[in-house]
Amino acid sequence: MSKGLVSLAINDRPGVSEATRLRVLEVADRLGWRPSLPARTLSTSRTYALGLVLRRDLRIVAADPFYPAFMAGIETVLTDEGRVLVLSVVGSAEAEERAYRTFAADRRVDGAFLNDLRHDDHRVDLLRELGIPAVLVGRPDGPAPFPSVVLDDAPGVTAAVHHLVDLGHRAIAHVGGDPALLHARHRRRAFEDAVAARGLVPTAVVDTDFSMAQGASATAALLAGRTRPTAIVYANDPMAIAGLGVLQEAGTQVPDAMSVVGFDGTEMARHTHPPLTTVRSDPQEWGAAAARTLLALTTSGSAASVELPPAQLVVARSTGPAPGPTD
Amino acid sequence: MSKGLVSLAINDRPGVSEATRLRVLEVADRLGWRPSLPARTLSTSRTYALGLVLRRDLRIVAADPFYPAFMAGIETVLTDEGRVLVLSVVGSAEAEERAYRTFAADRRVDGAFLNDLRHDDHRVDLLRELGIPAVLVGRPDGPAPFPSVVLDDAPGVTAAVHHLVDLGHRAIAHVGGDPALLHARHRRRAFEDAVAARGLVPTAVVDTDFSMAQGASATAALLAGRTRPTAIVYANDPMAIAGLGVLQEAGTQVPDAMSVVGFDGTEMARHTHPPLTTVRSDPQEWGAAAARTLLALTTSGSAASVELPPAQLVVARSTGPAPGPTD
Repeated sequence: MSKGLVSLAINDRPGVSEATRLRVLEVADRLGWRPSLPARTLSTSRTYALGLVLRRDLRIVAADPFYPAFMAGIETVLTDEGRVLVLSVVGSAEAEERAYRTFAADRRVDGAFLNDLRHDDHRVDLLRELGIPAVLVGRPDGPAPFPSVVLDDAPGVTAAVHHLVDLGHRAIAHVGGDPALLHARHRRRAFEDAVAARGLVPTAVVDTDFSMAQGASATAALLAGRTRPTAIVYANDPMAIAGLGVLQEAGTQVPDAMSVVGFDGTEMARHTHPPLTTVRSDPQEWGAAAARTLLALTTSGSAASVELPPAQLVVARSTGPAPGPTD
Repeated sequence: MSKGLVSLAINDRPGVSEATRLRVLEVADRLGWRPSLPARTLSTSRTYALGLVLRRDLRIVAADPFYPAFMAGIETVLTDEGRVLVLSVVGSAEAEERAYRTFAADRRVDGAFLNDLRHDDHRVDLLRELGIPAVLVGRPDGPAPFPSVVLDDAPGVTAAVHHLVDLGHRAIAHVGGDPALLHARHRRRAFEDAVAARGLVPTAVVDTDFSMAQGASATAALLAGRTRPTAIVYANDPMAIAGLGVLQEAGTQVPDAMSVVGFDGTEMARHTHPPLTTVRSDPQEWGAAAARTLLALTTSGSAASVELPPAQLVVARSTGPAPGPTD
């Protein structure tokens, strides 16, 4: 066998029969030989790595249960495929753009996950310009040249509102997330639409940055407001848990005087007192599906968008009948 | 200027004066030219990436506030230095070893963080064999060829026990972590030593896997035991929070009938009801210090071990005077 043939076989180039390729690989493997990744990368332009850039306040990243689960899901797929995840956590839009430009200039990754989609997200054009294939984690609000992996939040939020109205609640508030993020807007719109569908108006809708601190202060503001709600739907579990703390500190019984609904379906939500009614998404499966899609895109050049089962309401004991007028 | 000279200058090799090197780099920069990372890696053996392998049950990774904060700390240093973090999350010791071997074979990283140290940790020898420089995150229990970055848990745990004894507690239990991990053993030993130093014996010491589920079941077992403690010191905040939930569900008032101490000093601990007395470590600064040390080691070939300020007791409202005999 010629050196050239072995090289073609090892690098998975055309011009070598599958049988020959497998024999070459088998012999190479028996000899304990493997091509160096930097050399393979120079010759094939493959890095066998995928990239994830998180732009978040570090304080919020540390308390957010979404990303560890999402990354764990990515890893279940990458590990089996011998790929690795290259991670950047950045604090600003400028640092985020720099991170993607470095990915491209240094040929760090074969593709990237695009999380925390925004309105008219300029990162879509940036990644296309840079030639980095991407998978959108969530549904973009405009046309995009990349496949998306969507887990729809709305059905779970809608079910939560119907559950509360069915329990007799008429004064329902929403503690939303960061309105710069499409998924926070999407949860908010689902809340507002469901309330309207039952002929009601929201008692209040408060935007936050998704942090426990802002979840706590929004709850305190709702308690002090002129029209006090009898139920609060939060845009994530950490804020709902902070809300539970504020309500209990104020002597407001949950669910007797106030019903509370979270969003995420975290492990934490199962261990609060009372256990939290929440909307369960599946960040781990989301990460795995996004990784499978991005691998397909980077190896074959195309991949179909994926729609995962939507988020679902999980009723626990933090929701109950609306308090009567004498309560 | 010859091609060879430019190459030597760009790749920071000897044989080029500093003035020439700077001029070459300046011209290259003006031309918008930069050497490709794969080519630089082949020529300099530098990847400008650091590696972190987490071997944890995915369910526990998702609920553990330590790693997001630790990684965020690493990133604050790497981003400024134009480096990236390569992350692998694995479920078994075999997969962990494979991950390090792949790091070495593929020249993925210039160095690695060695977390979750174990007794006689075989990874120390593995990384030395593989030629991967490493920084130990925590104090090893034997001699090691790598520098360590230590944040001592013991003083905080000791202070927690003294705080409880000073409040009149005589029946104190410990819900520990995974005894395979040195830091869990270390917290447990600090607890036992402090209790003994006050002339007491622990009411109970329970090992767990650090999960909220096992924190909850350990708490339920302590409540049902023949000798019920009046205070419980947990090895992490998530277990303490799960314990709070179990106690409140059982109608056991905190702190009137039971004092509770966590460990981590998480954001979450500030928002529970009551806010959690806990032992604050600083995982973000720990990650940053580990990254600085590993960068120094990989660029200069040596780095000194670092001792960070130890973990500290933060008293909140989940601890109070021991209940009297009539309670």
